[in-house]
Amino acid sequence: MTDERVIIFDTTLRDGEQSPGASMTKEEKLRIAKALERLRVDVIEAGFAIASPGDFEAVKLIADSIQDSAICSLARALDADIDRAAEALAGAQAGRIHTFIATSPIHMQYKLRMQPDQVVEQAVRAVKRARNQCADVEFSCEDAGRSELDFLCRIIEAAINAGARTINIPDTVGYAIPHQYAETMRLLLERIPNADQAVFSVHCHNDLGLAVANSLAAVAVGARQIECTINGLGERAGNAALEEVVMALKTRQDLLHLETRIDTPHILAASRLVSTITGFPVQPNKAIVGANAFAHESGIHQDGVLKHRETYEIMRAQDVGWHTNKMVLGKHSGRNAFRTRLEELGIQLASDVELNAAFVRFKALADKKHEIFDEDLQALVSDTQAGQAPEYFRLVAVEATTKTGSLPTAQVQLRTGEQDQTFTAQGSGPVDAVFKAIEALVDSGASLRLYSVNAITEGSDAQGEVTVRLEKAGRIVNGSGADTDILLASAKAYVDALNLMQFQAKANPQAAGV
Amino acid sequence: MTDERVIIFDTTLRDGEQSPGASMTKEEKLRIAKALERLRVDVIEAGFAIASPGDFEAVKLIADSIQDSAICSLARALDADIDRAAEALAGAQAGRIHTFIATSPIHMQYKLRMQPDQVVEQAVRAVKRARNQCADVEFSCEDAGRSELDFLCRIIEAAINAGARTINIPDTVGYAIPHQYAETMRLLLERIPNADQAVFSVHCHNDLGLAVANSLAAVAVGARQIECTINGLGERAGNAALEEVVMALKTRQDLLHLETRIDTPHILAASRLVSTITGFPVQPNKAIVGANAFAHESGIHQDGVLKHRETYEIMRAQDVGWHTNKMVLGKHSGRNAFRTRLEELGIQLASDVELNAAFVRFKALADKKHEIFDEDLQALVSDTQAGQAPEYFRLVAVEATTKTGSLPTAQVQLRTGEQDQTFTAQGSGPVDAVFKAIEALVDSGASLRLYSVNAITEGSDAQGEVTVRLEKAGRIVNGSGADTDILLASAKAYVDALNLMQFQAKANPQAAGV
Repeated sequence: MTDERVIIFDTTLRDGEQSPGASMTKEEKLRIAKALERLRVDVIEAGFAIASPGDFEAVKLIADSIQDSAICSLARALDADIDRAAEALAGAQAGRIHTFIATSPIHMQYKLRMQPDQVVEQAVRAVKRARNQCADVEFSCEDAGRSELDFLCRIIEAAINAGARTINIPDTVGYAIPHQYAETMRLLLERIPNADQAVFSVHCHNDLGLAVANSLAAVAVGARQIECTINGLGERAGNAALEEVVMALKTRQDLLHLETRIDTPHILAASRLVSTITGFPVQPNKAIVGANAFAHESGIHQDGVLKHRETYEIMRAQDVGWHTNKMVLGKHSGRNAFRTRLEELGIQLASDVELNAAFVRFKALADKKHEIFDEDLQALVSDTQAGQAPEYFRLVAVEATTKTGSLPTAQVQLRTGEQDQTFTAQGSGPVDAVFKAIEALVDSGASLRLYSVNAITEGSDAQGEVTVRLEKAGRIVNGSGADTDILLASAKAYVDALNLMQFQAKANPQAAGV
Repeated sequence: MTDERVIIFDTTLRDGEQSPGASMTKEEKLRIAKALERLRVDVIEAGFAIASPGDFEAVKLIADSIQDSAICSLARALDADIDRAAEALAGAQAGRIHTFIATSPIHMQYKLRMQPDQVVEQAVRAVKRARNQCADVEFSCEDAGRSELDFLCRIIEAAINAGARTINIPDTVGYAIPHQYAETMRLLLERIPNADQAVFSVHCHNDLGLAVANSLAAVAVGARQIECTINGLGERAGNAALEEVVMALKTRQDLLHLETRIDTPHILAASRLVSTITGFPVQPNKAIVGANAFAHESGIHQDGVLKHRETYEIMRAQDVGWHTNKMVLGKHSGRNAFRTRLEELGIQLASDVELNAAFVRFKALADKKHEIFDEDLQALVSDTQAGQAPEYFRLVAVEATTKTGSLPTAQVQLRTGEQDQTFTAQGSGPVDAVFKAIEALVDSGASLRLYSVNAITEGSDAQGEVTVRLEKAGRIVNGSGADTDILLASAKAYVDALNLMQFQAKANPQAAGV
């Protein structure tokens, strides 16, 4: 008997992006989509086309660019939503419309304010409309975990008859327990007469730490699609982590007899890319992709590992991409070596101009830093691509001084259009002083929501990658900057965030405050 | 029918400390033990007494100080280990010796190099010896997940007859899947004739993201103790997270009919304390204790939450300690308000001298920072207590300058004994320059393993808390420093790490390189 295939449906770009503070530009989304394509994800949920012009553009860009994964857009069970999703997906090699409606009594009563009959009718109408524009339609019962089983059977049977190929049973609020969730799935598969005409799917949230277990429990009884995200990103405590779901299926294929088509050695690179773009760190003890996930500390265990590798290892670190990318380049590396290494890392720069810009930064970095690691290259490219928004503001020079007993001071020179302006400010620390000087010049009125620093590699000459999150009137942007100098990295990140905010305000003025 | 109680056994200080880079001083361990006592953890595994003199001291200090939780020490099934554990626990109100031996064929053959009969004999001997010195004895079958069921039944029956009160079935390598793990537990409880004379326990690792689910699956079939850690700290991908296990049991009491005695509103404070001491960040999408765990982003969900709170919330944020500690103190707060707030936060300073030192720092901080949050107080106290090692080196002054186009420079003045020395160094960034200047003065020969920054609160005048991890000859120390000035915080953290390293080298010279 050959093992059956589980479809991996990644929603990092849709549910993941709904994490507070994880919003991304469409170029960032495309980079992540390309990493997901390399991972061989079956379906990429690229966004919620009707949510905003920016969401529409991102879904369209990804649909037009990706070859090997199906591209999906979310849509409420409303005509306008479905038409907008279809429009965004028009250029896709393989497109999917994912429509949903709430099916739990509490949601139908308080959120939709609809009777169950109306809900069924609207679902059927939505699925039919989607099928008229797209062969591949998925239907989700929102808050299925708290829905009545009989009602679920009724609405799902109707949705399949209307043409839905995939039926998703999400645990929207992260309330399910594996054996109970599996029992619901088993009953649905058993009772719905046309269940064999659709793939059943799970979408689990991690509020109680059970998203991965619930997903596995459901596929063990017959579901064949798992919706998940890189690093478990997603609303609140996030979704099931793709890397954990995939490696659990692979490691326990002996027991579960299921497989995916994921190319697992690309997992770590995808994890790092998502972490870099969102500014969400991965904790060291995170399964699969945390810095300690494959490290062995205690003497007893080390001894065991030395005596027989298998005593403490159930997976090989290199199977998920660890140890494959070590130190590579230095001061004397040329442009060819640089380009080749980027290609090996799966990084494609859009043009020779971008490559040249990145190479210039690389040489500047190599002057300051002895060994250049793959992580440095990722940050460098990320930094090069950061300037995707037009440079309304350009950082020309920064000078900062801190001295015990006096207030830190920073002088910042900023170019706006053709004009250079300089301002000197004091702050509670040099970073604060730098930010105050920039604000004095720009007067954005934004407030700082998050300031985070990741050391990209080891050693005191490591690059710091700073993320600055600014908010103004409900609009949130993340700016990033990398440098061996933490103050310069901070200034770059702040200016990057200001440029993004300015760009978004011009591109989409009415979205402010939504 | 009343719901049965599950015993919560916390091993943050033993298994958690085995995370690479998470080693703690005994004073830090005591602070965590006090937080666990406030949480009403049933059993605190405080360390592995024979592992090193430092471990012994930590177990003893905690055993002598904690009243409301039982204190446990790990011990291999060896006479010397058990005697040392008993010695460390002599002063405990309630002590427990936790002895273990490997029971899987792979471990018995390659690690122990013993026959199964010898393993049973040694286990029985160890349990008896432990019972002669301590009424409460736990026995663990290491790598139970890969052990043969018949052999497990045999060795467990013998251990219970020898006097073990708790039998632990760990999934040492994080390989188990919930339904299969539960089936093993069910068979053990059914087949072992004297199973009713002991509490069965689970200890799960998170390599596949299933530690919490495996723990719950086991208690659902009759296990009554869960071994877990704050933030899921632990070897590799860590252990089951205490906060997730406890909140899953509480939130799904309707289904599982089990309860714990944990005082859940103290969860967040314990999480933050462990994160601060180890320098391990908690990712924003971590369940229960992550910054986003209770945040609602998408418009649809926010709308739902506004219409009816229960639509998207299955737990109340304040039940785990969120929103209970907001802004509290400012520039004009007096010593009494300061002391009262510390007491409310469960922070006890050892002496009036420490309180005064903390208050002086508080006033200095209030001069620089408008609003003081609870997190600031935690950091402040952490900083005050950081100087637990004698101050071999004392930071007198720091001056650092960075300027676009030239190398950053730092001048550091350091006091060693009575003597002040000053050095000026250049670096690839101002932090690097500060560290190089300090190293030029101290010449420790240590290498920098980790540099991390946490912004403690929001806003650009937030304090940064810097963790510096140094390693020399296998000895690892974490230094920390907090300041609104990131460069001063970095300098403080580096000097703190050097003091700890010096202190440990003097206290325990032979341990270097172990």
